[in-house]
Order: sequence, then C-alpha cells, then structure tokens
Amino acid sequence: MIVVMNSGASQAAIDRVASEIERMGGRPHLSRGEFRTVIGIVGEEVTIDQNHLASLDGVEKVVPIMKPYKLASREFHEEDSVIDVGGGKVPQVKVGGTHAACIAGPCTIENEQMLWTIARQVRSGGASMLRGGAFKPRTSPYSFQGHGEPALKWMRACGDELGMPICTEVMDTRQVELVDRYADAMQIGARNMQNFDLLREVGKTNKPVLLKRGLAATVKDWLLSAEYVLSQGNRRVILCERGMKTFEDSVRFTLDISSIPVLHEWSHLPVIVDPSHAAGRREWVGSIAAAGMAAGAHGVIVEVHYNPAEAQCDGPQALLPERFAELMGQLRQIAAIMKKEFA
Amino acid sequence: MIVVMNSGASQAAIDRVASEIERMGGRPHLSRGEFRTVIGIVGEEVTIDQNHLASLDGVEKVVPIMKPYKLASREFHEEDSVIDVGGGKVPQVKVGGTHAACIAGPCTIENEQMLWTIARQVRSGGASMLRGGAFKPRTSPYSFQGHGEPALKWMRACGDELGMPICTEVMDTRQVELVDRYADAMQIGARNMQNFDLLREVGKTNKPVLLKRGLAATVKDWLLSAEYVLSQGNRRVILCERGMKTFEDSVRFTLDISSIPVLHEWSHLPVIVDPSHAAGRREWVGSIAAAGMAAGAHGVIVEVHYNPAEAQCDGPQALLPERFAELMGQLRQIAAIMKKEFA
Amino acid sequence: MIVVMNSGASQAAIDRVASEIERMGGRPHLSRGEFRTVIGIVGEEVTIDQNHLASLDGVEKVVPIMKPYKLASREFHEEDSVIDVGGGKVPQVKVGGTHAACIAGPCTIENEQMLWTIARQVRSGGASMLRGGAFKPRTSPYSFQGHGEPALKWMRACGDELGMPICTEVMDTRQVELVDRYADAMQIGARNMQNFDLLREVGKTNKPVLLKRGLAATVKDWLLSAEYVLSQGNRRVILCERGMKTFEDSVRFTLDISSIPVLHEWSHLPVIVDPSHAAGRREWVGSIAAAGMAAGAHGVIVEVHYNPAEAQCDGPQALLPERFAELMGQLRQIAAIMKKEFA
Amino acid sequence: MIVVMNSGASQAAIDRVASEIERMGGRPHLSRGEFRTVIGIVGEEVTIDQNHLASLDGVEKVVPIMKPYKLASREFHEEDSVIDVGGGKVPQVKVGGTHAACIAGPCTIENEQMLWTIARQVRSGGASMLRGGAFKPRTSPYSFQGHGEPALKWMRACGDELGMPICTEVMDTRQVELVDRYADAMQIGARNMQNFDLLREVGKTNKPVLLKRGLAATVKDWLLSAEYVLSQGNRRVILCERGMKTFEDSVRFTLDISSIPVLHEWSHLPVIVDPSHAAGRREWVGSIAAAGMAAGAHGVIVEVHYNPAEAQCDGPQALLPERFAELMGQLRQIAAIMKKEFA
Repeated sequence: MIVVMNSGASQAAIDRVASEIERMGGRPHLSRGEFRTVIGIVGEEVTIDQNHLASLDGVEKVVPIMKPYKLASREFHEEDSVIDVGGGKVPQVKVGGTHAACIAGPCTIENEQMLWTIARQVRSGGASMLRGGAFKPRTSPYSFQGHGEPALKWMRACGDELGMPICTEVMDTRQVELVDRYADAMQIGARNMQNFDLLREVGKTNKPVLLKRGLAATVKDWLLSAEYVLSQGNRRVILCERGMKTFEDSVRFTLDISSIPVLHEWSHLPVIVDPSHAAGRREWVGSIAAAGMAAGAHGVIVEVHYNPAEAQCDGPQALLPERFAELMGQLRQIAAIMKKEFA
Repeated sequence: MIVVMNSGASQAAIDRVASEIERMGGRPHLSRGEFRTVIGIVGEEVTIDQNHLASLDGVEKVVPIMKPYKLASREFHEEDSVIDVGGGKVPQVKVGGTHAACIAGPCTIENEQMLWTIARQVRSGGASMLRGGAFKPRTSPYSFQGHGEPALKWMRACGDELGMPICTEVMDTRQVELVDRYADAMQIGARNMQNFDLLREVGKTNKPVLLKRGLAATVKDWLLSAEYVLSQGNRRVILCERGMKTFEDSVRFTLDISSIPVLHEWSHLPVIVDPSHAAGRREWVGSIAAAGMAAGAHGVIVEVHYNPAEAQCDGPQALLPERFAELMGQLRQIAAIMKKEFA
Repeated sequence: MIVVMNSGASQAAIDRVASEIERMGGRPHLSRGEFRTVIGIVGEEVTIDQNHLASLDGVEKVVPIMKPYKLASREFHEEDSVIDVGGGKVPQVKVGGTHAACIAGPCTIENEQMLWTIARQVRSGGASMLRGGAFKPRTSPYSFQGHGEPALKWMRACGDELGMPICTEVMDTRQVELVDRYADAMQIGARNMQNFDLLREVGKTNKPVLLKRGLAATVKDWLLSAEYVLSQGNRRVILCERGMKTFEDSVRFTLDISSIPVLHEWSHLPVIVDPSHAAGRREWVGSIAAAGMAAGAHGVIVEVHYNPAEAQCDGPQALLPERFAELMGQLRQIAAIMKKEFA
Repeated sequence: MIVVMNSGASQAAIDRVASEIERMGGRPHLSRGEFRTVIGIVGEEVTIDQNHLASLDGVEKVVPIMKPYKLASREFHEEDSVIDVGGGKVPQVKVGGTHAACIAGPCTIENEQMLWTIARQVRSGGASMLRGGAFKPRTSPYSFQGHGEPALKWMRACGDELGMPICTEVMDTRQVELVDRYADAMQIGARNMQNFDLLREVGKTNKPVLLKRGLAATVKDWLLSAEYVLSQGNRRVILCERGMKTFEDSVRFTLDISSIPVLHEWSHLPVIVDPSHAAGRREWVGSIAAAGMAAGAHGVIVEVHYNPAEAQCDGPQALLPERFAELMGQLRQIAAIMKKEFA
C-alpha cells in the first residue's frame, strides 16, 4: 500500500501517517519527491486500514498494491482448483484445471413434464449437469416467480434418474437450508453477488457455489464476493461470467471475455460462461459460448427449451435441443485445442 | 407494445403472432411496410407477455410502449406523494412535494458515545432525521460489519431524546422484523436493490422504505424495484439516488443528476440524493448535494463525523460537523428557489 | 510514479528497473515487502516513461502518482483562470472565477432569418454569447450537415449587431482558418475531443476554445486534451461538461455533475455545462442547468428555438424562448448563492 | 418508425403528426389504446425525420424500427462482403466470408531497422499483412507522435519486399492523400470513428478502410460511421472491434465479443478483432484473439515487438515474435472449426 501526500502536506502530517502505519503493524518507507512525499508500506497489507489512512490530514490518496482478497488469489493457492460437483446417487463432475463442464436446462421449471423432457434432451446432447430455476429473481413483481420446493423435488428426481448433478439458484438466506437439501450445487445470481448475508450462509454449507458476476462488479469485486464464501470455510466456488451492464444495447449484457484470462492469472478458481443471459437472443448464444471456451473457460451454462415460445421466462434466449447438441460438438473441439476436456 | 416482424416473416408467422395477442387479451393492429410488418397491440399492456411474443417465429423484436410499473407511475397517482416518517415519541417529518428533509449521521455506529455526539451535532446543524449503520454491507469480508441490535437501541434512544426519526439499513430478510421494531424508516442499500425477497419483506411492513438505486440499475429498473415494495401494500417508498458505476474513476460512483427530473416526470415518489457515497471524498460532497437540490430533489442523506480519521467506515467522505451546518444553510437557500422547504 | 514488481521478480530484474529509472533522470527508492518489492521514483514525473517501465521483466504494474498534465493543473496555476471572449465590435465576456456566462442559440443555423429571430430572443432572455452550428457533426451521413461559411457570416453580423460574442464548432483541421476568421470562440465537439491534429490547430490560434468532454473520456483524459491546446501556446480553454455514455437510457447522455468539483480541485480552467445535449428533452434541461450552476459551473450553453418542431437538428431538446428567459432568472439566483455573477 | 403519443395528447396533435408523416412521404397507421395512441409509419424509413416528429406537440417518443443505415446492412447486401487488400507488387489478401487475415507488426515505427526485423518475424510467424504507425494518436501531447512520411516509405519498401500489403493509420483529412499514396489499407482509429470529415475523405479514395470501433460507440453507431465511408462510393470497409470503455479496470478496454455475431446478423461487412489494445497486457492477448476467432471474426490485428521494453508506445501489450507464431497456430485451428481459413 502506498500513501501519496498532497503537495502542501506538513511534516507533522507526514509524521502522523508514519506513526499510524506503525501502530497498524506496517513499516513506513518515505520517498520525498520534488513536489510531494510518498510513503510506501512494508508488511502484511490486510492489517492496514486503507480508509483510515485516507482520512488523515494531508493525504491525497492511498493506492493498494496487493490484492484485497487472499483465499481466492493465485498467490495463496498456486494450482488450479478443481471442484467436484455431485456424488452419492449421481456421478461426480469435475470443474477446473483441464476439466470442463456443461450445465444445461430450462431457465425456469414450468412443470414436471417439461423438466423431464428437457433434461433428457440436454443429457443426450452432451450436458453433464442439469440447471433449472425453482426460485426466480424477476425484475418485475408481476412476472412468474417459480414453483419453489416442488420444482426442487422434480429436479432431484430427474438428476438421480439421468445421472446428472443438479444446480439451482438460491435467492434468500431463509432458502439456503431447503435448497441445500436438494441441490448438488447452489447458484448465487448476479443481482445477489453482493448480498453478503447470503454469501455467508452458502459459505457455511459444503455445497459447491456457482457465483455469477454482478452486473456492475469489477473482477476484483467479484473475487471479494468469492472471498466471503471461502472465508466461511466453503472452498468450492465456481465463478460464472454472465455479462456486465454497459452502454451497448444490442445484447442484454456485455459478456466480458477478458475476465477469463484475468481470472486465470489472479485466481485459482474455475470460471464458466453463461452465454444465454449475456446474449438475450438464441442466435448469438453459440458464438459467445465458443468464444468463452476459446478464452479458456472451464465450461458453459446454457438455457435450452424445446418450445421457447412457451417458456415462462427468457424464451428468446433458449437454444433448441438440436442446436444445443450441435454446439456441444463444436465446444468439445475448441476445448481440445485449449487442452481441456468436457465431462 | 409493438411487435416488429423480420423482413422475411411468413404470413403464417404473422397470423400466429396476431392470434397469440388476442389470446392474451390484446387487439392486434397490422401495419405492412415495404420491408416488414409491424403489429401494434391495443389494450392493457401488463397482461401481454413480451418474452412470449419475442419467442415466436419471425419476430425480430418487441418494443414496450407503456411503462412496466404501475403503482410507482405518475399516471397511476398524479400528485406528488408526501411520505411521513416518524410519529409517536418523535415528530413526523414529511418528505415529498414541497417538503425536503435532511438525514444525517455517521456511516457506521462505532460506539454509543460517538453516536450521541454526532447526533447532537447534526441536530443542531439542521438535520431532521438521524442515519447510522447497525448492519453494514462491506465489499470485503475482513471489514467491520456493524454492531447489530445494540446499535439499533442506541439509535432509538438518541432519536427519542433529540426528537429525530431514525433511518437505518436492513440487509437480510431475517433482520426485517428486528429493524422494524426500532427504526422509523428502513433503508435498502444499493447492492440489495434487486434482492427481491428483501423488497417483499419490507413491503409487508408499514414503515417508510428508503430505496437506494442499484449501481447498475436504470431509472426503470429502480422503479420496478419500488413496485415490488408498493405491490405488497406498503406505499411509503422514498427513492435515493447515490450514483452508478461508470468508467469515470475520479469519484466512487457517478451521481446521475438527470434521474431527478426524469423521476419527477415518471413517478409520484419523492427522491433524495446521497452525495457522500457518490463522491467518496468530503471535498466534493457539498457541490453534489447542492446540485441535487437544484435539480429538484426532496432532500439529502449525508455522512457526518467529528473525527473522520477514526471512522471505521468511509471516513474520507464524512463531513465535519461545522461544514455540515454551513452546507445546510446553502441547501435551504437553493431549496427556497426550487419552492421546497426543509423540515 | 511507483513500480510494483511481481512476487517472483528476481534481483536482476529489480536492478534493471532501478538503473532504467536513473537513466531517465529519476531516483529509485526500494521498499521490500514480505511478498513483493515496490520502487518509488523521486524526481520530475514527466521525464519518466511509464510504458517503458511497464514493459520491463518482472514488473507487475506502474502506478502514476502525479497528474499527467501540467499546464492545465491547479498546481501549475493556482488562481482560477478567467477567459475573455470577444472584443473589437462586441463586448468582452469573462468566463471563470466569479464570472459566469450563458451561451445560447439554435443547434444548427437553418437560415438567416431564424438566426436573427433566435439571437434577439436569447439576447433579451439574458444570454451573453450566441451559439449556432455552421458545420454539424451528424451520426448519420444522410442528415443535414450545416450551411458552412454563409452561416458563419450570418452569425458574425448577428453578433456584431446585438453585441454578443459568437461561438461555433470547428470539425476539421482544414476549417480552422475559416472559422477563426469569423468566430469569437471555437468549439471542439465531444466526438473530436481526441482528434489530436484538430486540437493542435486550434492551439495555434489565439481564440478561446470551448472543449467539450468526449463521450468516453474521464476527467483526466479531458484535461490531457486541454493540455494539447495549452501546450501549443493558446491558454484560453473553457471546458464544457455535456455528459458521458452510460447504461442509463432515459437521457441521451449522463451529465457527470461531480466533474465540476473535481475539475475545480484539479484545474484552474473554467467549466460550463451543456444540459441540452445531456438531457435530449427540453423538459429536463432546466433542472440539469440549475444543478450545474449549484455544483459550481461557470455558466451554461443552451439550445433555444422558437419552433422546435421545425428545427433541422435536435428539436426535442431546444427550449422555447420564454422558458429560456425564465430559466435564466433562476440560474442568476443560484449563481449568486455560489458567489458567481452572470455577464 | 413508430410514434407514441403521450396519454393526454389531443386529437389535433394526433392529426398534426399524421399529416407531417404524409408530407414526408410515409403513410400513418393509427392504433388507439386505452391510454395512448400509437402511430405506425408505413413506407421508406430514411425519408422520415425522427427528430422532427419527436419535436411535435403531444409526442412522447419515436421508436425507429428499421436500421438507420442501408449500404452497411445485411438486408441491402445479403452475401458476406469479401474485401481484397493489396495488389500490384504485393499479393491480394482477402478478408470476409471464409477468408481470415492476420495483420501484425509494431505499434509505432521507431526506426527503419526495427520495422524490417519485426516485419520479417511476423511474416515468418504467419501474418498476411503488416501494420505499423507512422502517425500516432497519443492521449498526452508529450508522448512520441510518429515519424510521418519517412515511416510510410519504410513500410512500403518492407511490404513490397516481403510480399505483404501494408495497413497504417490516417488521423487527419490533410494526411489522406499522402497515406493513400503509400498504404494498401487505411486505418481509422477508435478516437476518430466519428470524425465525419475524415470518414468522408477516406470514402472518396478506393483503398480498403479498417474502421475501428469508437470507445463509446454502440454497434449501431459504428455501422453508421461505416455508412459514411460507403456512401461516398468506397465499398471496402473492414470493421475492427477493439474494446469499449466500461467500469472494468483490469483491462484497458472491454472487448465486446458479442459484437461479432451481432454484426454478422446486421451487416455484410467483415470484422476483425484487436486483442492488443483491448487487453493492454501481452499475457491476455492470446486468449482474447482466440475468443474473437471462435466468435466468428474474420481475423485479428496484433502488435508484435522483439523487445517490448524498448517500444516507444504500448510495449506492455506487444507479443514476442515466438509467442505470436505459436498463437497463429492456435488461431488457424480455431478458424478451421469456424469454417474459415487464414491467408
């Protein structure tokens, strides 16, 4: 961490900053420039309170040098983390390192029959995990909000029968215990990426957590949210890039393709991409999925529906089952070039 | 709502769209252009499922015409809403219409003594409500997270003694009952603006809700979140503009000053501005607060601390008590020009 | 400037960085932390090539500490700059410090008669300078592109007769000599803010330059563009905040109100706001103009038209003359509170 | 185009809009809803002035339905355009359809020797065209601005000798004639994407134009800029995605990967990606280039330098020659999956 004093800072102000740094356990290193003094801090960065230093008289700005997260960082854990999802009645699917996974299924679970149909279709098309919404975050209070527990039961039966781990969203701290009972992996949606109480609750379970990137979150913010989960003892976090809010209006969200190599450098956690929510239109889903794999992602999560015109949610972005199977073929080829293999 | 067919859409596809519109209770109006057909929908827009139409064959896009919210709209409620905060032991403070309010206090409540000191300072400086954090949403899991219930008790005592309604943040559905017991107004933070379960819970209370704008939320998204609260029966929503995430990095968040007149046209709900979180530096707080009042806001929420260097949270953006009092004088003058009066 | 080495950087790499710093005229200061070494640079920052250092082996990042501009900075010139516009047949209008100015007129000059009508209306409504487009940057090649030199002649005659300095846009290096011959101030549009050849050309004239902020420019980028003009010898730059491109779609551009206090701290140059292009709708122009003045701007530039429905450009955002006069009354009141006075 | 009247619009206002539509050559279609009237316009959209309609009394908004560009649209030209670059002493390289191209070389041309060295390296590594900056747009006036004409001569000699068409940037209308004399393709930089005079000038030449996307431009804005060039008679435009300005600060610019499939649907023009400027760091360039090809791009433009630490511009993002050759191998494999072939 580096403290930049403003050009008129007094010696007393400089001394105060230095003594505060020492009080917090760091060692200050002064560099006096022609116009201003800069104070470098030697020592463990996490014990130094950046805000406190920024509040002191004469301080112009405080520049952090080390990453603000630890457990999520590549420096803490050099090897790629490989997360196992499933077990028990369903096979374990690995995500991370050279292991890629495809999670597919409907956006929301409209009824039992459609879930079974789509689950069979994605299974035969090449998916290794089943997705589906039992609780749905909807921008409008007047939209369909999901079937809740019955949908979780349908998913569990489907997954067990077809041999696919199941992944579903949890939206509220009060649902964690319930969802944990049924699901093999719990998804935290983009709008809840900084719902810190929810992060802590899923961090207390031992289920893999699929953590979607928030619409306004930088990669650093996102890793700090992962740190919330990790710091509770749950080390099984899979990141999911699903696009950010930008001025571009042709797509719903701008998928940040560069986050994939950035994460690979900064963190050991696996990352998958969600091309469906980013694109918002099925015509563009395939290209974005392929791009994600080429950039080095550890898999994709894709929405599929045999009759998008009857989907209760996000129909326009659902792939048809045949198109999904064809896309999986292409993704396997790209994964091979990037030295990864789909389960 | 308007459905734009793509240029090669068949007559069968056009007919299917028209019949679906009728099934959902609308009346279709076809306009055949040289290149494409456009179908306008006459009737109550909320019953028409935009996503469903967008999923049909041959549809290029669906353009909504009416606002997707209702209870929050100016069309539903023509007069400005005036919200009463407080009552019982503390006086009622009005927010909305010609009534402006200043909510001030520390970011987080570090201990009982500091709260009393600051509460007295903001009271004498001109604040009409007291703010303070008992539960704090922190980007890092390693930062101080607030004192919880004890802090709520200190606030209640302070508010009662000094005659100021108190406003504090609720972060989790499980805290709503507790916070409701102590606070006069409940704040929903920016990172929870689309925590829909939380919105529903506060919507079931009868306490005024201070709804901060999400970092990636458009004005329309924000009004849809207000609609969640309103649709549960709680009609006392105060909006709070606190800045959006943009590429500009001189400030923490870009306060969207134009949201004030836009909201005034689209909605009857009062809106206040939070210059402290937007600026991130006390030197810029005054200018942004003044701008908010000049744009027509119904008040401000400001962080104040007598010793920012010892604040456990956001010290750099806290105003000193004397500067706060001076600013209030200026804000009163601007409010008068805009035909508003501070409580 | 500070060079952060990555955690595995060798001693040889550290030595190489240090010797390169010395070669460029700086003195390196090493701070060895537990995990990484940080090298502070003492000396005049502008002679150090940040990119060069960032390219060296073992360097993780280079953090600039001082501002990258000099002539535009408050440190270089402590007092507010006051720019004189006009002279000769028209009175000099001051902009900056305690002097505020209102520049008003049509977006584009459609014909001679309309210019005279509007010029008289804005003069009597309180404008101190006349704006109008002779060359128009249009997003579509099929839109009206302006009348060119004839429009410049009409403006000159109008300005001389009514006693108002005139301000008009220059879009191309080849037009600078022509526009310089007629105008009292030359505007650089947002889309040309980083047209560096054009900046250099206007920097070689001695006419005041109204430099609009680019749609994707940070405050720092903007001051660097001002530096281009200043470094050619022309010290008369007036900045103009007109909004940035963000995800918010209710307005055309998001006016960054916080740029006003930020600029006041970082630079001595005056800044005015353009509420018309930001809002895109006349209903919202007044609130944004008022906010700009309350934030400390040195004036406004506003589009006015007596018959917006016949404007060839940006009709929806033009104020009617009566509304303009009324707004000027309000702006004068706010300016007085902020210790400024309109010419 | 669709005109939405506000809820209180009078019959006279509706009639006025209808008659204005007819005057401009369109046929109005009225749809009266419960709350508001919507007027669809049948006929050729380009003759209708959207702004004019938006200025009329009682109009709430005007929604364009057709694309605002024509020559750039897929509807105008159904087949993919294939652009030939080069000819004469150098071979013709095709870009578009199934033809992919790699343009590589230094950011800026520092001297003759380095250009020859790098040109040979990228040639043997698999590049089909040579890039290099003779005129450089630099954010700071104090940075190196390029060698100008001598650098153009060096490039020409290099290209002729090695059999590679050359591509270089033109920044100013006054340089077009000069650059046209030497280069096989002219690049318009991101900061000049809406320098309309410059677009017109290159549109009057018959050289291929590499049009980079502006930092704040939507895909639609970008195609409108292409339309400027096309409408002057030059039909040889190659688009280049190089990232947008967003809040994410890990990279220099956020490469918008979804623009590739969006462009493929909306336009017949080829598009390549520039991973170097987007990433800003060589470690991330390969992943972004691979992603671009997987998304369907028609090639890449990459910066290469044998000694990035001595580059005068953008050294940190230049690939080393060996890494470039290795990347080309990977890109060829991905191109094959996407049914494209590198020259």
